[in-house]
Amino acid sequence: MDEKQLIWNETGRKKVFDCNVFSVWESYCNPPEGSGNFGVKDGKPHAFTVLDARDWVMVIPVIDNPDGKKFVMVWQWRHGSKSLSLEFPGGVFEPGEIPEEAAARELREETGYSPKKIVKLGEFNPNPAIMSNKIHFFLAEGLVGDGRQSLDDDEYVDVALIDTNEVLQGIGKEPYIHALMGTALALYRVPRVNV
Amino acid sequence: MDEKQLIWNETGRKKVFDCNVFSVWESYCNPPEGSGNFGVKDGKPHAFTVLDARDWVMVIPVIDNPDGKKFVMVWQWRHGSKSLSLEFPGGVFEPGEIPEEAAARELREETGYSPKKIVKLGEFNPNPAIMSNKIHFFLAEGLVGDGRQSLDDDEYVDVALIDTNEVLQGIGKEPYIHALMGTALALYRVPRVNV
Repeated sequence: MDEKQLIWNETGRKKVFDCNVFSVWESYCNPPEGSGNFGVKDGKPHAFTVLDARDWVMVIPVIDNPDGKKFVMVWQWRHGSKSLSLEFPGGVFEPGEIPEEAAARELREETGYSPKKIVKLGEFNPNPAIMSNKIHFFLAEGLVGDGRQSLDDDEYVDVALIDTNEVLQGIGKEPYIHALMGTALALYRVPRVNV
Repeated sequence: MDEKQLIWNETGRKKVFDCNVFSVWESYCNPPEGSGNFGVKDGKPHAFTVLDARDWVMVIPVIDNPDGKKFVMVWQWRHGSKSLSLEFPGGVFEPGEIPEEAAARELREETGYSPKKIVKLGEFNPNPAIMSNKIHFFLAEGLVGDGRQSLDDDEYVDVALIDTNEVLQGIGKEPYIHALMGTALALYRVPRVNV
């Protein structure tokens, strides 16, 4: 892999839309040097549309019940898909939060549980083709709490304990249709040391 | 889970931005019935910002080499993250394509390989909170080809064969930072029948 044949250089950008969830930018870029090696290219600057957003967090909360290991999950209406989705708790960072704080807060607000132990599993860009932000994934264990949620005015969330194997086998089909939950489970399956 | 306490009803929507990758809409919605059970809610209509896009596809191409099983992956500059990313091939559906066609086409264009066998593993919404579209995941085996790519004018892609275990263990850290690649690997690890 020859980096200079792949890297574009941004020469400017312009904000074209803004809302409380993200802003949309046009990014103007010069193509990679020496790009002729990859075939006939126009060699011209191009404009790309990208989304800026605050970082996100997703938490895998695990409970060891007498009848087996369970994930604490949330049923939510999702306005993008216009469907009910069964997901791990998560959300958007508050200004100034570190990832561990955002993880514990989202877990507590959406499920009423607080973790005795919270471990970072990894971080990704949700979609590096168009997004600028990161999503941080945590494993939460030793859950204690009263099950009392603390939701925003436009947030309606129903908590469910689901057998871990049901979720691991069921992804990619309804109701496990949130792609970033799949990402979380891929990390969950990476062998961990001292966790 | 009581559906009617979670489902919002869209009463209207307005397009607020448009480009060749997606369009942005304001979606106006009435809150769920009987939502009082979830605590003090304002009971008022809310506006949510959502993104419409064509469906996407991602392909996991596997080669059985004498020195072990390899994924065929692509190095790409990503304009959202402004970084180099090592990913599975994939992209946006062309108008009228069925998922299998989009998968085989993206694999061929980005890597020069065509699969003797291509199997659907599952489908997700990339992010149901804000996206309307789906991403379809495929496993591609029996790869044949001359390694000659067929790229768009603004596409510079470098092909690499990477040991499958390196990728499965390495996700969530550079250069494996594309969250949807994690989703693909979670599906790859679901036991398959007759594949």
